[in-house]
Amino acid sequence: MIHMDEETRALLAALIEGERVASLGTLRQGAPLVSMVAFLAEHERSGFVVRVSRLAWHTQDMLKDPRTSLCIAQRDDGREDPQTLARLSIRAEATQLDDAGEDHERLKAAWLARHPASAISFELADFRFWRLAPRDARLVAGFGRTYNLSAADLRA
Amino acid sequence: MIHMDEETRALLAALIEGERVASLGTLRQGAPLVSMVAFLAEHERSGFVVRVSRLAWHTQDMLKDPRTSLCIAQRDDGREDPQTLARLSIRAEATQLDDAGEDHERLKAAWLARHPASAISFELADFRFWRLAPRDARLVAGFGRTYNLSAADLRA
Repeated sequence: MIHMDEETRALLAALIEGERVASLGTLRQGAPLVSMVAFLAEHERSGFVVRVSRLAWHTQDMLKDPRTSLCIAQRDDGREDPQTLARLSIRAEATQLDDAGEDHERLKAAWLARHPASAISFELADFRFWRLAPRDARLVAGFGRTYNLSAADLRA
Repeated sequence: MIHMDEETRALLAALIEGERVASLGTLRQGAPLVSMVAFLAEHERSGFVVRVSRLAWHTQDMLKDPRTSLCIAQRDDGREDPQTLARLSIRAEATQLDDAGEDHERLKAAWLARHPASAISFELADFRFWRLAPRDARLVAGFGRTYNLSAADLRA
């Protein structure tokens, strides 16, 4: 396990729990495509969940190649130096989740608690949950303060 | 040229001129990696410039493969539905720019006007400007309002 001081741990938690949207990188014809997604961290951060439409490019990409990256960045608060904004770059493997069953219902409840405005997506046939299982991650906690994290380090 | 109404054009301009940071997708061992970068739009948006360190993974990635994606997303303002935040996903080709000469000095001045806190990066030997030349872009102006843009459409 990597050593992170208390302040850095708190920053990581604030980032993951405080932000609602992130940037999702997928592979499109072998090249990167980055789009914005709403996300939810699983219990203890063992994985990250997104809810996306089959009609969206990123979903079509993940259906073809599960390799993804999710970047959670602190929203720009207008500070003098935006390079000091904290951000976490996760490299992950994407899997589409089942659209029914107990796990789905539990996830749906957690998702709606975090993203109440997305209730409509449960009325639309083209939306599904996808799980992003972290391979590793890189936390930039400020200028020059970079931590390489394993999936285990990422866990709360 | 694609037809965008006045409101959408204004949204696109506000996004590109209003945001200071974006998400950069690069290829790392064939997989996507997304990180946060400060950026500057060139005159008339013919390209986008980032200033990155040779020590950073994204720079090492671009040195190996120029295929990148830059996602400029409206910062989360706490609105009810974050899915209505505007975002622009650009697919681009990255080139490292010369570190001297008139063009460099002009770019340096424009960069410092936009990112004054990054003056220190001009004292460090490992930072360089990179130009991202758009191939095409996708603007999501809100739920279900998606525009496929060519590099020409993107231009102001």
